[in-house]
Amino acid sequence: MTTSDGEGLGSHALADAIGARHRGVERAVTALRAPDTATPGAVVVWPDADADGLAKLGAAGVAAVAAVPGDESRGEALAAAANAVGIALLVVTDARVALARLSRALDRRPAPAEPGVHPSATVHPSAVLGARVSVGPGSVIAADARLGDGVVVGPLCSVGAAAEIGDESVMYARVTLYDGVRVGRRCVLHAGAVLGADGFGYAFGSRGAEKIHHLGGVVIGDDVEIGANTCVDRGTLHDTVLGDRCKLDNLVQVGHNVHIGDDAVVAGHTGIGGSSRIGRRVVIGGAVAIADHVTIGDDARLAGRAGVTKDVPAGETWGGFPAQPFRRWVREHYLIGRLETMWRHVRGADADGPATGEAKRA
Amino acid sequence: MTTSDGEGLGSHALADAIGARHRGVERAVTALRAPDTATPGAVVVWPDADADGLAKLGAAGVAAVAAVPGDESRGEALAAAANAVGIALLVVTDARVALARLSRALDRRPAPAEPGVHPSATVHPSAVLGARVSVGPGSVIAADARLGDGVVVGPLCSVGAAAEIGDESVMYARVTLYDGVRVGRRCVLHAGAVLGADGFGYAFGSRGAEKIHHLGGVVIGDDVEIGANTCVDRGTLHDTVLGDRCKLDNLVQVGHNVHIGDDAVVAGHTGIGGSSRIGRRVVIGGAVAIADHVTIGDDARLAGRAGVTKDVPAGETWGGFPAQPFRRWVREHYLIGRLETMWRHVRGADADGPATGEAKRA
Amino acid sequence: MTTSDGEGLGSHALADAIGARHRGVERAVTALRAPDTATPGAVVVWPDADADGLAKLGAAGVAAVAAVPGDESRGEALAAAANAVGIALLVVTDARVALARLSRALDRRPAPAEPGVHPSATVHPSAVLGARVSVGPGSVIAADARLGDGVVVGPLCSVGAAAEIGDESVMYARVTLYDGVRVGRRCVLHAGAVLGADGFGYAFGSRGAEKIHHLGGVVIGDDVEIGANTCVDRGTLHDTVLGDRCKLDNLVQVGHNVHIGDDAVVAGHTGIGGSSRIGRRVVIGGAVAIADHVTIGDDARLAGRAGVTKDVPAGETWGGFPAQPFRRWVREHYLIGRLETMWRHVRGADADGPATGEAKRA
Repeated sequence: MTTSDGEGLGSHALADAIGARHRGVERAVTALRAPDTATPGAVVVWPDADADGLAKLGAAGVAAVAAVPGDESRGEALAAAANAVGIALLVVTDARVALARLSRALDRRPAPAEPGVHPSATVHPSAVLGARVSVGPGSVIAADARLGDGVVVGPLCSVGAAAEIGDESVMYARVTLYDGVRVGRRCVLHAGAVLGADGFGYAFGSRGAEKIHHLGGVVIGDDVEIGANTCVDRGTLHDTVLGDRCKLDNLVQVGHNVHIGDDAVVAGHTGIGGSSRIGRRVVIGGAVAIADHVTIGDDARLAGRAGVTKDVPAGETWGGFPAQPFRRWVREHYLIGRLETMWRHVRGADADGPATGEAKRA
Repeated sequence: MTTSDGEGLGSHALADAIGARHRGVERAVTALRAPDTATPGAVVVWPDADADGLAKLGAAGVAAVAAVPGDESRGEALAAAANAVGIALLVVTDARVALARLSRALDRRPAPAEPGVHPSATVHPSAVLGARVSVGPGSVIAADARLGDGVVVGPLCSVGAAAEIGDESVMYARVTLYDGVRVGRRCVLHAGAVLGADGFGYAFGSRGAEKIHHLGGVVIGDDVEIGANTCVDRGTLHDTVLGDRCKLDNLVQVGHNVHIGDDAVVAGHTGIGGSSRIGRRVVIGGAVAIADHVTIGDDARLAGRAGVTKDVPAGETWGGFPAQPFRRWVREHYLIGRLETMWRHVRGADADGPATGEAKRA
Repeated sequence: MTTSDGEGLGSHALADAIGARHRGVERAVTALRAPDTATPGAVVVWPDADADGLAKLGAAGVAAVAAVPGDESRGEALAAAANAVGIALLVVTDARVALARLSRALDRRPAPAEPGVHPSATVHPSAVLGARVSVGPGSVIAADARLGDGVVVGPLCSVGAAAEIGDESVMYARVTLYDGVRVGRRCVLHAGAVLGADGFGYAFGSRGAEKIHHLGGVVIGDDVEIGANTCVDRGTLHDTVLGDRCKLDNLVQVGHNVHIGDDAVVAGHTGIGGSSRIGRRVVIGGAVAIADHVTIGDDARLAGRAGVTKDVPAGETWGGFPAQPFRRWVREHYLIGRLETMWRHVRGADADGPATGEAKRA
């Protein structure tokens, strides 16, 4: 992508980058801002912008607005307004996708680490580093580790023996990969994440708890993002597996031998018990707890705070604890809200003489 | 504060330091202890101490007792007992406040890091360090970071590019600040805390999940304490904000764009969903889950394990999941405890022939 | 233990190591595998293996099978099959214990850190290191710390002033011990664990929240394992104590002054409130929340997701929130599942004219 000047992106180039249709006038765009914090030169995502709004933003110096006009006539009106006020109009169909793409195109945050191997890093001679790898200050790369092209290892990371990181993956500060962990390409691992610690497994025999050494590994697909201080345990004899494009939020716990399918999304504070299987495209809310050895079918959704104790069929939405189909859970809550009425009924019957001896004894 | 000898604090000075009235005799105080582990020279907080108790502690060598006599005559009796046994009596009105102030005055724990920049630290030449800054072994201070006077950076911390830390703030080991994070004055950040990781935001369009780059920051007020391994995500386009004097426990998750008001208290394992607003002086118990985009009014309180799905009015106490006003929640639990009675009533009616066809079909 | 060749363990030696009876033929065993991923030379744990199964595994090159024949005649049949196919049969009584011991005997994972003190580590001259200690790259050992014989400190760990680590304990990467923390012998601390951060304690007086400095410590027994990113806070005036052989999973929070008895097991995401007492051999499921100042009796068990608000008697199993005896909790859920029936009954009565005015007003 070329920039129209030293500071900004040309709005036509930006429209191409985000898959938008360009209307209005060419402007240099320097930043992405929210409508309430718009600055001169910024682009703003405003799905239902109208002509008056465009005029106001334009007067404030805003360079471009991404909008979802909805129909042709509204689009023309907006374009006319954009021309009148002299700003760019980026016509899109999905405002959130536009936001994601603009945030990427206009991300001016510094790179997570300097390029090259920092002199304070400790890289074992047997480790293999691809082209353009950067290893941040203090980081430790153990024997036989393999880092693909363009890998960024932030400061103070620990990459265990024979661990592998695919091309263009980024580790922020203080990520730990235990020995043998394999991370795919274009992954993003946030600070404090721990991949490959021993699973929680013991045999309780005559000598007390005997540790089950975890000889399996962790295998992470491509384009996976893992949140800060999230933990993914290694498997017992098999691997713990995360499919391609999985997104895990902060402080998530993934137990040993778990399989998570491609494109699954797991919000913060969720824990997944050992050997459970999470299907493809499953969406898991925050603070969900999933028991050991259960299966969540493809495309299932778990409401925040769900506590899953048994299998969830593909495509269903479950919630509550113990988790149940969402509609049943909602109904249950409705009925719990009717308990006062039920109790009055029962007590009333009691007071007037219960219909049966059963009720009398209660 | 002057000490009466090389090891102890004079009890009059100590009384001044904690806002107590000094009675009994001047003693040198060397440590703060619990009543059951009192050692010679120690001060003990014992709100409802009586004369016999003082005598016993005095005989064991205790130097001072902080007590809440309640009324004048009881105070005089205690003072007489203190004089008789030869110990100091620190008359206070709030035992817990006395404990806090004594714990501060008698904190003999080592400083969290050596003063100065440790030779193994990596400080970018463009970083600006105030007077008396200490940077611990292995820590990494990136470009354009600004550390105020007296800042203590413990060992193995990572301070991102252009991050700012206010005067006298302390970071224990292995704290991570991402780029641009701003921390106020006199803050305490515990080991493993991560401030400024990307929020959990994606657009799900035709190309699958597209990451929303997080261009906002994190702004932490003055006198904030953040627990071990707690995570505060950066905002999307705005900042995630913690007000002055907020206290966050360990393993807390604060989502993107969240605002937490001044003086809020958040216990461990609590998660706050994206863009939610927590008012001033809100008190949040442990393991609470707060959904995205809700508002918790000023002075509200959330019971431990609450799961908040909608706004909580100012000043109210809520609990349960979905959270509701505390009294209603308690009532609901009472009624759930009556279910056996209700069920017997219904079954009894059934057994004898239900009153209506509705019940028969059930 | 001697190996029969450069790569494998002799099966008789392996049988001795795991307390099994050796039948079939001597084989060199190179690895432990699951039945579905068995490789040539591997040993497989297959509790209810039969003769056909042994033949199939033998044909695939498997070297040994650990089985639980149950009775004499079945054992003889298996031994005959093992002889026929030329593999070793390890006769055991507890398959999970056999798995644990085999996983230990055949653990070929690299040591968590190189022996010796890495040149990039920072060890204070006053620290005392036992024989065979290894300190990984970048790790920081503060003044007066004491490391026992054979202690392994992984990369990028921080051991605070006057902290103590018992013989043969292992810390993986990025473990933090605050000042004065004492860890027993043969402990395993996983990456990101934080021991000894300040407990969450404030006094709320006229000056707002005043921090209670935590002058107590953390004392960890022998043979304890602590999971990744788990936090154990230091005590206020007393110590926080974990007994011998405790096992804590990942992302667990242990509050100030907590005592955990010997042999307790705590699964992931569990939080234990301040000053609570957990008895010996207590088993706590995942995502459990335990309030402050409660006592869990010896041998009690808490189901996953329990929220404990009051004392749990010794030996009992509790679940739910607020937690109650397991059977009562199950009964309660049964009754909640009957709410539809109860509601129909009540509404039916309403429809036909309620028995009492109470119900009519509801």
